[in-house]
Amino acid sequence: MYLNRLESVYKHMERDGLHQAIISDKNALFYLFGSHFESGERMIALLLRSNMKPIFILNDLFSFSDKDVDVIYYNDSENGPDKLLPYIEHYMALGIDKSFPSRFLIALMDLHAASAYKTSLAIDYARFIKDDIEKELMITSSHLNDLCMEDMKKSLRVGISEFELQEEIYRIYERHGISRVSFTPIVAFNANSTDPHHTPDSKTILEEGDMVLLDVGGVYKDYCSDMTRVFFTSEPTSFEKKIYNLVKEANQEAIKHIKPGVKLSYIDKIARDIIEGAGYGKYFNHRLGHFIGIEDHDFGDVSKSSTIIAAPGMIFSIEPGIYIKDKIGVRIEDLVLVTEDGCRVLNEYPKDITIVDIKK
Amino acid sequence: MYLNRLESVYKHMERDGLHQAIISDKNALFYLFGSHFESGERMIALLLRSNMKPIFILNDLFSFSDKDVDVIYYNDSENGPDKLLPYIEHYMALGIDKSFPSRFLIALMDLHAASAYKTSLAIDYARFIKDDIEKELMITSSHLNDLCMEDMKKSLRVGISEFELQEEIYRIYERHGISRVSFTPIVAFNANSTDPHHTPDSKTILEEGDMVLLDVGGVYKDYCSDMTRVFFTSEPTSFEKKIYNLVKEANQEAIKHIKPGVKLSYIDKIARDIIEGAGYGKYFNHRLGHFIGIEDHDFGDVSKSSTIIAAPGMIFSIEPGIYIKDKIGVRIEDLVLVTEDGCRVLNEYPKDITIVDIKK
Repeated sequence: MYLNRLESVYKHMERDGLHQAIISDKNALFYLFGSHFESGERMIALLLRSNMKPIFILNDLFSFSDKDVDVIYYNDSENGPDKLLPYIEHYMALGIDKSFPSRFLIALMDLHAASAYKTSLAIDYARFIKDDIEKELMITSSHLNDLCMEDMKKSLRVGISEFELQEEIYRIYERHGISRVSFTPIVAFNANSTDPHHTPDSKTILEEGDMVLLDVGGVYKDYCSDMTRVFFTSEPTSFEKKIYNLVKEANQEAIKHIKPGVKLSYIDKIARDIIEGAGYGKYFNHRLGHFIGIEDHDFGDVSKSSTIIAAPGMIFSIEPGIYIKDKIGVRIEDLVLVTEDGCRVLNEYPKDITIVDIKK
Repeated sequence: MYLNRLESVYKHMERDGLHQAIISDKNALFYLFGSHFESGERMIALLLRSNMKPIFILNDLFSFSDKDVDVIYYNDSENGPDKLLPYIEHYMALGIDKSFPSRFLIALMDLHAASAYKTSLAIDYARFIKDDIEKELMITSSHLNDLCMEDMKKSLRVGISEFELQEEIYRIYERHGISRVSFTPIVAFNANSTDPHHTPDSKTILEEGDMVLLDVGGVYKDYCSDMTRVFFTSEPTSFEKKIYNLVKEANQEAIKHIKPGVKLSYIDKIARDIIEGAGYGKYFNHRLGHFIGIEDHDFGDVSKSSTIIAAPGMIFSIEPGIYIKDKIGVRIEDLVLVTEDGCRVLNEYPKDITIVDIKK
């Protein structure tokens, strides 16, 4: 178990006045143990208690041992919540991590397991701040994503469909030793880019003059990358240039303002003001960014309503966009790591207007 | 929306005395709408209410319309549970599907949204019985898995590692038009097969005389297959034959007894009795089977504690196994569809002892 990470979870529990909490999310468990648990529909729960050894309840199909926890098994004819019950302090509130399935919570409530049930984000707050091991993995993961993006650019050619390009993207990651993507790659030509979650199709074929948006990421040693770039295949129109450069400016200005102590809602505002100031505010219809790490979307975001204050070790995306229906969609996304006095951009892939020759 | 499926969910809600229920599971939503929703950490909820049009709450990043539901959007500065609140009957109990994340349930409880909260399996019960469209997809999915298994058998050769074989399995599915596996393929040589969830490694190399266990499945048009076969690479010892044939007998006898009206716990007992009768009971340490469909593990199982009674349209696995640590692990798994008067085995891949020549 990573005891420094556990320590951080306890600190956040204490701050929230919680003496006990359940952690069940598989990514949270990976964060703490460095092991993957795929319990499927079976209950898995780590019960953290102040000043006592944690209890880890899991199905006996999965064998696991770790000197820092007491493992309690149940079998397929037994009930996870029943097994957990004796270890819970019934007269105290119980923290519940954000994705514990409701059926187990309702079963615990029916057993009167605790005096109250509170959503506990202690593990999510701990995961906000990447430790040195995680930082290194995230840096390498994004570096590999830069290399893969260059290969993707080289894959652009007349006649390739969005779907074929998506398939090639999987091969490109594999060639770079990455067997899993952070999320289904988004490949959008021309106006398809106006849908931030476009699904690539095999009917949309690349032709000279088209614009290409790629929003892609791979998983390196369990840590995700995520980057968006837009390529042109001929000289962009002055309108395309204007939109592109506006998004780029929003991306760069937001990044410039990131440093410890700054509210993430302010970073969102920096980018949004630039786009709004140019009259395109209504076309930037999503938050500026999201946290990332073991998950492509870790808990926490960079948005108008975010209450998070930047601190060293945080890693999140900065991804302003402008989407004008049936016309043009541009998004430019980088990952940034907050440092002691500013931030480090983890993606070094160029952001200037790039024209790719696709007549091959 | 598939109104026949919605109808079935309502029937189960009524039987449970529930007038309103939340469905949030993405697979359940796919079952009802035939569309994929990837809302990530954002709340998504279909509120079903007796005698009223369903309400579908989702983030405005996702555009969706369906004449059979009223769609209510919220944006990233709003809260899903707040938005849902006005549509809930506060003086009645609210059903919650089994995987609704606890943080949203706790938020609803804090808002006093309903008089009580009950885990509702209505959608899971509906999904127990596959309709004609689903049956056809499941039949084709398993047929393709049979074809893929034959290709996997042909891939066996001296010197291949478990990990390499696993990689080839992905390619084999792709060649058959299947781009996604139901679960990470389990590839286990010799005693590695004694771990039912073995992770393939690159150090374990196939040699003549080895035994190979493959537990694999692909996803065809969103419906999962799942099959386990064991291959020998030279004449098995009499002990190996004995274990293999015992597992095969348990598989076949269990299948013979499946018909509408039979308890699934009894089917589990048939298989377990055969293995226990031969003195190997303690080496069969898991349930006999699980339901399958849109998910590799749909809700519901074939086990000692299952309370489910077989009915036409159910599809589940029959997968007895014997695992003797450091020695041998055998599992034989088929999917079966309960018919009007018995069952249809969806896997036609042979189950007799098969010796593969791997000196190529």
